[in-house]
Amino acid sequence: MEWFEERLETAEGRTVRIGVTAKRACVRSPYQTIEVFDTVSFGRMLVHDGVIMATERDEAHYHEMIVHVPLAVHPAPRRVLVIGGGDGGTVREVCRHAGVEEIDLCEIDEQVVTVCREYFPGLTGGFADPRVALHFADGAKWVAEHPGYYDVILVDSSDPIGPAEVLFRREFFASLHGALREDGIAVTQSESFHYHERIIGQISRFGREIFPVYRYYYTLIPTYPSGVIGFSFLSKRFDPLRDGDPGRLPFLADLKYYTPEIHRAAFVLPAFTRAFLPD
Amino acid sequence: MEWFEERLETAEGRTVRIGVTAKRACVRSPYQTIEVFDTVSFGRMLVHDGVIMATERDEAHYHEMIVHVPLAVHPAPRRVLVIGGGDGGTVREVCRHAGVEEIDLCEIDEQVVTVCREYFPGLTGGFADPRVALHFADGAKWVAEHPGYYDVILVDSSDPIGPAEVLFRREFFASLHGALREDGIAVTQSESFHYHERIIGQISRFGREIFPVYRYYYTLIPTYPSGVIGFSFLSKRFDPLRDGDPGRLPFLADLKYYTPEIHRAAFVLPAFTRAFLPD
Repeated sequence: MEWFEERLETAEGRTVRIGVTAKRACVRSPYQTIEVFDTVSFGRMLVHDGVIMATERDEAHYHEMIVHVPLAVHPAPRRVLVIGGGDGGTVREVCRHAGVEEIDLCEIDEQVVTVCREYFPGLTGGFADPRVALHFADGAKWVAEHPGYYDVILVDSSDPIGPAEVLFRREFFASLHGALREDGIAVTQSESFHYHERIIGQISRFGREIFPVYRYYYTLIPTYPSGVIGFSFLSKRFDPLRDGDPGRLPFLADLKYYTPEIHRAAFVLPAFTRAFLPD
Repeated sequence: MEWFEERLETAEGRTVRIGVTAKRACVRSPYQTIEVFDTVSFGRMLVHDGVIMATERDEAHYHEMIVHVPLAVHPAPRRVLVIGGGDGGTVREVCRHAGVEEIDLCEIDEQVVTVCREYFPGLTGGFADPRVALHFADGAKWVAEHPGYYDVILVDSSDPIGPAEVLFRREFFASLHGALREDGIAVTQSESFHYHERIIGQISRFGREIFPVYRYYYTLIPTYPSGVIGFSFLSKRFDPLRDGDPGRLPFLADLKYYTPEIHRAAFVLPAFTRAFLPD
């Protein structure tokens, strides 16, 4: 068996190896190297600059949780922006919400969309939805240019190394606030509480300074280095521990990970996180 | 950097590698090979037959959750049995409960205790507690020979390959029932819902046939192959979703993982587990 090995700077001293049967694609874009593998146990796998982004087996754990948590809390989301997310999984989940009227995807790297359309049809189906518009542009600039426009913004980024680094800065969180309507919600990929105390501590400070409501929640991804990935829930009005009705979503029976009970449990964090994520 | 690599049969096509700085011990007991490493990021690490059992950095996530969940649900646990658990972490956590009067450890492999006393003083401190008695014996036989004796039994076993295989059989679950008092609770290590559908399905069937209350819960261990390990909660009377008062534990401020909120959230499982763990 051949092995793909991931070595993340942020997970020094621990790596994940995935058995692979074939390498399907290797594309060098202006921003990163994009690779596609077939694996022994996880279906097809997408890799950016040597880091696992998604596998067919567990991608729904991530995409359902970045989308349905904020869209169940917001009572009437009509305009949704996805930043990053060129693999299509986040857009696919947003499309399940019938009340959403406009879905903008702002992905800096067009090659990600091109590669995923070819190799991940199970993720990219939402791109054909008439509500979806693709924009190959800088996400930080896009939000600065759309003040007060969106109900929900989902930042489906890679790690803060390479093209996504700017999406972890204070300035970007302030721009998110500016691009949201008066009761808007943003969710950003925010690393793992097992390994990334420093960066989560920073993000949560920015988040609390800029938004009235800051919460951290997580999902479980066995192919990520710690098995956990978290999200920042940034909100101008609605609190996920008080508002919203996850039980109203009509497509719950079609989901692999999200349930109304998981929606609430995902905000409950282990004791050790209090050191860098105080209540 | 040198690497330790784990290859589990049950996680085919995915392995974990941990950077190590020194190998401290390698002991071949009659039951298994026991190794101790110093690691780059996880402190000291215990390995049985090539499988990671515990690291200093995340062992509390496991030991607190196998112990405090049942001991917070049982209103007055006095006699506690630990099967396996020769590293001492489970006994250490049981010792925090002042009301417990007798703590029996039944570990088949005395060499595990000998090695851990030398290399893991942070785990084995509980062995000096006067309430603790060590028995180097077969756990399945021990429970069969102690009918109606224990309030709580904790099965802190390795995977169902090698010496622990018998601890995953129906007969053993029936023996657990027999060794418990009329309102007793048993908790058994029950693998990961990401990878072990078949074995979890089996255990949960045995559990439901034999005990009035069966629940599955989990904890997060970044050094395990999927980042998740689960437990079966087997109970003659008390239901962890209804009974007990986790908030009453006087040592909550000293814990790294367990909180009263985590106690409840740990029973909330992703949607895909319904296929093999129905409500």
